[in-house]
Amino acid sequence: MAVGDVTMPLMHVVQGVKIGSTEAYVRYPNRRDLVIFEFAEGSNVAGVFTQSAFAAAPVLLSKKHLAENTPRYLIINTGNANAATGTVGYKNAETTCAKLAELAGVQANQILPFSTGVIGEQLPIERLVQGIQPALNDLNADRWTEAASGIMTTDTTPKGASEQFELDGVTYTMTGISKGAGMIRPNMATMLSFVATDAPISKVLVQQLLQTTVEHSFNRITIDGDTSTNDSCIFVATGLAGGAEIESQDDPRYQQVLDVLARIMNRLAQLIVRDGEGATKFITVQVDGGENTQECCDVAYSVAESPLIKTALFASDPNWGRIVMAIGKAGVPNLDSSKVQVWLGDVQICLDGGANPDYTEEAGAAVMAEKEITIRIDLGRGTAKDTVYTCDFSYDYVKINADYRS
Amino acid sequence: MAVGDVTMPLMHVVQGVKIGSTEAYVRYPNRRDLVIFEFAEGSNVAGVFTQSAFAAAPVLLSKKHLAENTPRYLIINTGNANAATGTVGYKNAETTCAKLAELAGVQANQILPFSTGVIGEQLPIERLVQGIQPALNDLNADRWTEAASGIMTTDTTPKGASEQFELDGVTYTMTGISKGAGMIRPNMATMLSFVATDAPISKVLVQQLLQTTVEHSFNRITIDGDTSTNDSCIFVATGLAGGAEIESQDDPRYQQVLDVLARIMNRLAQLIVRDGEGATKFITVQVDGGENTQECCDVAYSVAESPLIKTALFASDPNWGRIVMAIGKAGVPNLDSSKVQVWLGDVQICLDGGANPDYTEEAGAAVMAEKEITIRIDLGRGTAKDTVYTCDFSYDYVKINADYRS
Repeated sequence: MAVGDVTMPLMHVVQGVKIGSTEAYVRYPNRRDLVIFEFAEGSNVAGVFTQSAFAAAPVLLSKKHLAENTPRYLIINTGNANAATGTVGYKNAETTCAKLAELAGVQANQILPFSTGVIGEQLPIERLVQGIQPALNDLNADRWTEAASGIMTTDTTPKGASEQFELDGVTYTMTGISKGAGMIRPNMATMLSFVATDAPISKVLVQQLLQTTVEHSFNRITIDGDTSTNDSCIFVATGLAGGAEIESQDDPRYQQVLDVLARIMNRLAQLIVRDGEGATKFITVQVDGGENTQECCDVAYSVAESPLIKTALFASDPNWGRIVMAIGKAGVPNLDSSKVQVWLGDVQICLDGGANPDYTEEAGAAVMAEKEITIRIDLGRGTAKDTVYTCDFSYDYVKINADYRS
Repeated sequence: MAVGDVTMPLMHVVQGVKIGSTEAYVRYPNRRDLVIFEFAEGSNVAGVFTQSAFAAAPVLLSKKHLAENTPRYLIINTGNANAATGTVGYKNAETTCAKLAELAGVQANQILPFSTGVIGEQLPIERLVQGIQPALNDLNADRWTEAASGIMTTDTTPKGASEQFELDGVTYTMTGISKGAGMIRPNMATMLSFVATDAPISKVLVQQLLQTTVEHSFNRITIDGDTSTNDSCIFVATGLAGGAEIESQDDPRYQQVLDVLARIMNRLAQLIVRDGEGATKFITVQVDGGENTQECCDVAYSVAESPLIKTALFASDPNWGRIVMAIGKAGVPNLDSSKVQVWLGDVQICLDGGANPDYTEEAGAAVMAEKEITIRIDLGRGTAKDTVYTCDFSYDYVKINADYRS
């Protein structure tokens, strides 16, 4: 069960984006597992990808195609990650693109392939290729919800966000989906996320907007500290809703688009945490008072990834000793523990590095009983801050991962 | 249940070392929880300690006393870590030393205090101090097994190692104990470990021997990636079995002592992993073929600490995709995945970065069904190597840590 409100919103259509999907039987029969996105000609597309040394074949090919040409299609399968599959896997990704290119009448390098699922097994390439035409036949602007469910693996719920906004009197739409529930600590990208807008944004700014917002959304969530071989995040601006192209950060519309994208990306990233494998709680770890952002980020991740803290959160145990343990091991140079403050929600549990004499176990337990908990840490040595989102660590995390072949 | 053979060996007495213990009711009644070591005058003592910024009061005081004077006593309590306890906690550690010094007739800074247990609560200092005289009354050379059980927290078994060895015709003894089952990824030290020998070794070499052997024993084990505020490891050489003092690494006896100490330390460290919270399997992660030791260590820890791999090990699932995921995220610069080989036991699962075509699921499953599993990784880019020991991640890890207040 996902934590908190994860319902799909009204998914507004984005002019210039069509989506089709089908049941290709990549791993399981009778489930939607192949999704195709079509972008109108002239769309600007940006991507960020996993930094894993074992980046999957589709990641390598997507990066190559993105550098060579202007993407017109995305093709995404779930059930098989096509990762650690060697030259055969790479050829399978190429075959997938070639077949879609042939049927759609575009160049093969105008297609970006994505895969998610089991690592180390070859794609059932014949079945996958046979699914392309049915998915193309299904292309329609109003298929975002189907796409969100068509890219799921261990996700328990489809994940989407959508907004309409106005720039200089023109109404634009931004809509996106994401997937991922385990193997989540993205490094420069997420599991899979696709966001589109019909606002007119230059190619350079599309990439800048994506990188800026990924850094504080998908790059600040963690479920189990593991980084996937397939993490990818794509942002496309079709420009089809009209208006002059945004070409500079000085254009006042840039900041407005950035704000919308940041909200969409944050929502899509946090939905992944809310649906974290076995999650029963949504945890915000907020670190203030650092000398620089990096040390705040290090402390936040040290807390967010500590199995001891995550099991205590699962047990609703206000075990603040484990929190100072995690701060202590984060490697902050010359940290003066006597200046460190820690709050659980509004309750200060650690005062000047020791137990807060006014703290009561009842007050701490009341916060821990909540489904959404903020752990706030003040390092007391500067003004930098950072925030990381995570979930707790339950019996079900072990159960899911002991049973599921990722 | 600990994994494999963890039985206490015959714990040979070490000339010049006496041990006493008592039930001081630090946290729980009716259990041995206060242990005192007495070292003969002239003993050389070395220590390594946690690098946590939240190092506990007894760690700070032990380091101070070790720098100021020659230790004659160790005093160790379990049940309360006296960590994150501020100035009151530091005073309590001082009071403990002062009281023992008074009763034993030594200087307060000849005493090293150690605590393990709950973080963030003050010691029950009156009860602890009242336990000192009974523990002193109990002093006896043949109390190693009682000491091993008297320092346990969530440990399910006392941990000890003991050897007798001969140098230039003189028979010496080396005996040690350790404790720890969770919050284990020592950084320069372990949870708690105390090793003594009656061989004659200079103060400088005692410290060198300790640091050298800690690096490849306690600093190469991980249960949950968490580093304690209280990790400490002490090595003492009383010299009381006679012979000329070993004063140089060129003394041929130095290497012999190093070998014995390395075996004792490895055994004590691996016992902690075998008794890891919820552990059902003992895992050796061996990385060869690196450009340098650090990158081998990084890859080994990335594999050993991946919750996805640890749950797969618990499930006996030969999920090698998760292993390449962990290699990929370890941050090895310019790693060529097509040169990476991975073995489970003797079964090669990953060949040149992809699935080994000769691999069968049956062969992999047979290895995974064992209680002791070696994961071997060849990075294919050099001759450096390193090894890390860990355990699997089970339902019981969550259960223990959701219930226990560490």
